[in-house]
Amino acid sequence: MQKPSIPKGTRDFSPSEIRRRNFIFDIVKLKFEKFGFSPIETPSMEKLSTLTGKYGSEGDQLLFKVLKRGAKFDKALAESNIENVKDHDFSDEALRYDLTVPFARYIVQHQNDIIFPFKRYQIQPVWRADRPQKGRYREFYQCDADIVGSESLVCEIELVSLIQEILHELKLGDHTIMINNRKILASLIESCGSTEHFSKITVIIDKVDKIGTEKVIQDLKNHIPNLKIADLFEELFNLPNSTNDVIDWLKNKLKNSELGQKGIQELNYIVESCNILNLKNLKINLSLARGLDYYTGSIFEVVLNNNSMGSIVGGGRYDNLTEVFGQKNLSGVGVSFGAERIYDLMIDLNLFPDNLDKPSRFMIVDQSESSINGLKLLQFLRSKNIECILYPDDNKLKKQLKYANSNKIPFVVFIKENFSEDMIVELKNMDSGEQNNSLLMDII
Amino acid sequence: MQKPSIPKGTRDFSPSEIRRRNFIFDIVKLKFEKFGFSPIETPSMEKLSTLTGKYGSEGDQLLFKVLKRGAKFDKALAESNIENVKDHDFSDEALRYDLTVPFARYIVQHQNDIIFPFKRYQIQPVWRADRPQKGRYREFYQCDADIVGSESLVCEIELVSLIQEILHELKLGDHTIMINNRKILASLIESCGSTEHFSKITVIIDKVDKIGTEKVIQDLKNHIPNLKIADLFEELFNLPNSTNDVIDWLKNKLKNSELGQKGIQELNYIVESCNILNLKNLKINLSLARGLDYYTGSIFEVVLNNNSMGSIVGGGRYDNLTEVFGQKNLSGVGVSFGAERIYDLMIDLNLFPDNLDKPSRFMIVDQSESSINGLKLLQFLRSKNIECILYPDDNKLKKQLKYANSNKIPFVVFIKENFSEDMIVELKNMDSGEQNNSLLMDII
Repeated sequence: MQKPSIPKGTRDFSPSEIRRRNFIFDIVKLKFEKFGFSPIETPSMEKLSTLTGKYGSEGDQLLFKVLKRGAKFDKALAESNIENVKDHDFSDEALRYDLTVPFARYIVQHQNDIIFPFKRYQIQPVWRADRPQKGRYREFYQCDADIVGSESLVCEIELVSLIQEILHELKLGDHTIMINNRKILASLIESCGSTEHFSKITVIIDKVDKIGTEKVIQDLKNHIPNLKIADLFEELFNLPNSTNDVIDWLKNKLKNSELGQKGIQELNYIVESCNILNLKNLKINLSLARGLDYYTGSIFEVVLNNNSMGSIVGGGRYDNLTEVFGQKNLSGVGVSFGAERIYDLMIDLNLFPDNLDKPSRFMIVDQSESSINGLKLLQFLRSKNIECILYPDDNKLKKQLKYANSNKIPFVVFIKENFSEDMIVELKNMDSGEQNNSLLMDII
Repeated sequence: MQKPSIPKGTRDFSPSEIRRRNFIFDIVKLKFEKFGFSPIETPSMEKLSTLTGKYGSEGDQLLFKVLKRGAKFDKALAESNIENVKDHDFSDEALRYDLTVPFARYIVQHQNDIIFPFKRYQIQPVWRADRPQKGRYREFYQCDADIVGSESLVCEIELVSLIQEILHELKLGDHTIMINNRKILASLIESCGSTEHFSKITVIIDKVDKIGTEKVIQDLKNHIPNLKIADLFEELFNLPNSTNDVIDWLKNKLKNSELGQKGIQELNYIVESCNILNLKNLKINLSLARGLDYYTGSIFEVVLNNNSMGSIVGGGRYDNLTEVFGQKNLSGVGVSFGAERIYDLMIDLNLFPDNLDKPSRFMIVDQSESSINGLKLLQFLRSKNIECILYPDDNKLKKQLKYANSNKIPFVVFIKENFSEDMIVELKNMDSGEQNNSLLMDII
């Protein structure tokens, strides 16, 4: 018989993996709550119509679609000899691809029950039929926090503070929060007269961390039929590092663009406020673009310093996310923590505490037939909230001690037949090997 | 534009619903851990071949299958005009239907890394394309705890104790844990010579709580072509209530069946031990059958006394669960808590604590343009781990106070322009309406 296995790109998690993952999730949750975010959850499946067209055509291809059942399947099958049949015809529902689109759908669906500004967080798995590779899975968790229904830049500053606090708690304090603004990016590109190439340009410049500035400029020259763009980014990449110099350059460059001025004002307010609040990890990065089309203002990305893992947190402001579901004029801003990458990083950097496994303190050995004294002691210790187990089987003692050892249980308690009368047990310290008679009350 | 919606039988959960659900999950988890169970998680999707044939033909129909993609879909489509095409041909993977079969698959797949007896718990959603109705959803959580790799009845006793402790903590202490044994059931039916009708009989007698004993006996008469069966269960339903009488009746009835004697011995040991341990909610119910085919020994079901909700916990022992994946002779016993039913019950009985929502203690109002003093105070209070928010927008005061009220925030703090110098704020008690100048240090 073939050994059973799981679908490509998915994972089983063992107890110690779960405890490490929960170490991350618990910290993220605790801080989300501290910052006033409330949890929601949405179904794993959404209607196909909710999801399609939201992630570009590439995204649509990566949706896990749920097969129609019964009469609906039969109908789809009967029509399958018609031309132009697509997999969409065999499906009404799909697994969620991210947490943002379901959240937008949630807001519109429940708008009458929501008090705005609404601060929600959501920690759930998402599914993408991407080609699996190291660090990329077909089922993975996202941890999102969003503030919806406020245009105030105070929200952006809160998110910067939240990111710093979470990463600090995870011992990932040595990071940089890169910030840019889509209004600035749009008006810079507009100033060269290349607005129609906006998406294409952002895809190229977004790779600067991976391929370097020279290659980006070469790619711009090769793929954008407007040499001003390559010149612009060449100038931009060579700007001095200081915030003031960058802001001054922008102010001059975009002096004729209302949108650009608005973007500069937003960026400047956030950077200055964070400076006053001593949130030091924030840094302007004018080539930061972020792939997603729905961003309209601030955009963020976080990388560890001196580490090539890439971005571990991303986010930004969106003014029109709920519009596609029928609710206009609802601006929001959010961040998403890449839990899987953070997990991989923390494994690489050996950042998880050693004591996450929770071994029982005692293992009781009762070799009598009824085990009733062992059961009584188990019940007594648990009533004192002491974590303990009773080895259930009548196996050889060596096997039982090996079990205690493998499960990192520090003490084994041997029950004697006259235990109920004298309350004396034999205690073995699994570390030192010492073994003594002890009064039960002395060991708890 | 049509208001967006979610697939039939699925649910969105609002913050207060999530907090109530987590109230249950947290207690269940805490007790699972206390009793020495360790968490695992398995993928939402399993290979279709892992799941099919494990839940009967009805179960196979209820699987949510994932549509093939790309070339595989095209191939399935191209072959779709062949006779006898089934939806299986369009799918390689399906969403998990329960936690038990994936766990069996997990054990076999990772057998070399597992130390037996293995005590695992798993709290994850499962999916069934059942017709939705009150209390029945297409996506719902299961909370399972199993001990695998031990035949000892000590495990059953541990589970009885675990059930009592969890239900007590949830204020559902007034319950009955019904216990029966599949060996007894099998040999009772064998004693009438109706072994071939075992499944059919168990389906009928399992309904006794819903339809009553008279109707069950009538159904047995109508559907089982052996009148001894109806007579047997008529006698069984009229047995005296005492454990001793029941055991004596069984011993006499099954004196020629080795399997029956084994079952009686198992049942008797568990009931007697629980009696000694003062686990009083346990009660023999000889008509308890449980639907699932894989049980081979003890079976459990828990109902609230004086409540018609039906069973909220179920479980039992299985000797051959992993055999279908290639690993023989691995006995296990487990329980599954019906979190959704428990939730509905606790809502009906008003058992959730009032204070599950976690409103911030302070809401800061800063009506200056920069909000920098508000941001500073926010940062200061959070550094003291005090939960607080800053109202982000420059809205009318009335709207801001309404927001604090709706979010149950007890105090609003008004920031003044000279706040940094004198550290004086104006504090409004949202309950009494009182408003005073206070030194910041006095209010935290």
